[in-house]
Amino acid sequence: MRSPGPRKAQSVFDATLGLLTELGYDGLTIEGVAARSGVHKTTIYRWWPSKDALLGAALLDANLLELSVPDTGGIDDDLRSLVEQVLRLLTGKATGATVTAILGAATHRPALASLVTEFFAGRLARERIVFERAIARGELREGTDPGMIMDLLAGAIWLRVLARGETPRAGYVRSIVSLVLDGARP
Amino acid sequence: MRSPGPRKAQSVFDATLGLLTELGYDGLTIEGVAARSGVHKTTIYRWWPSKDALLGAALLDANLLELSVPDTGGIDDDLRSLVEQVLRLLTGKATGATVTAILGAATHRPALASLVTEFFAGRLARERIVFERAIARGELREGTDPGMIMDLLAGAIWLRVLARGETPRAGYVRSIVSLVLDGARP
Repeated sequence: MRSPGPRKAQSVFDATLGLLTELGYDGLTIEGVAARSGVHKTTIYRWWPSKDALLGAALLDANLLELSVPDTGGIDDDLRSLVEQVLRLLTGKATGATVTAILGAATHRPALASLVTEFFAGRLARERIVFERAIARGELREGTDPGMIMDLLAGAIWLRVLARGETPRAGYVRSIVSLVLDGARP
Repeated sequence: MRSPGPRKAQSVFDATLGLLTELGYDGLTIEGVAARSGVHKTTIYRWWPSKDALLGAALLDANLLELSVPDTGGIDDDLRSLVEQVLRLLTGKATGATVTAILGAATHRPALASLVTEFFAGRLARERIVFERAIARGELREGTDPGMIMDLLAGAIWLRVLARGETPRAGYVRSIVSLVLDGARP
């Protein structure tokens, strides 16, 4: 291999995500990544021209974007699976700190915000099939908006974990899925 | 008045929130607040011993915590009112930038995170009466969890504004309230 970039990419990515979770986005620098990974600064800049480009590549590599699209044959279990994956993403040892650091920084960094926006759009595009199957089976009303249902369910997890500072108790995922499917009226 | 603190408090608070929205939490310093407000650093430190103490006081003063508890006589309109207030808080000219800066910084600042947690807990405590009235009127199932319904509705607004980077279209609030009340099944 002639290029030093890809060969050393893994240690650069590890250093990037490690420093991000330890220091936050503002504390993350190419210099810091160079020091921790042992890869020279100019080499890093040759492959990733900016901090945001490097961060985007590191996130992609980390499979944070991974989503297993369920097909259990029923909308209740399919939704539970999707929501459990959101919960694991936000609370997992390996992913939780990274995701919260990025969401936090994205609120005042446009480049990072568009990365987050793309992530959510890509995820929703892959989730649509779950809703199409459920509508075809007669389990959801015609015209049900997948984005709205995922806003409610993923938003509830988000708000509880990030704003209320709680890890939802067992059964929480099942309860919010039932509430959105059956409604709160008697 | 003998104390310079309260007398000059307003200009200190204005400088604090202004710098927070312009520079983000990490860029906010007592020195910067002193320079912009014209109040001496040691005076600021005498009244607010830390950046987080100052920020907490400035937020309280800004009435970000304001909540008008609706009592329209019906749960549909009451919930719409509560959710519209979340939307205005997150997208308002005066409040949106402040709130997103704080939520962003809170993900890696424990002192700020507990401020956010308290804010959400206090808000939920004041919202409970809306749900008690609706259960008494027979509009919601006995045992309906107010926190869960507010997680879903406020979480959806949050996720759409902060993560998807969209301002919800007109009618969005009405649609998510109907969905949570009536459910998504046919």
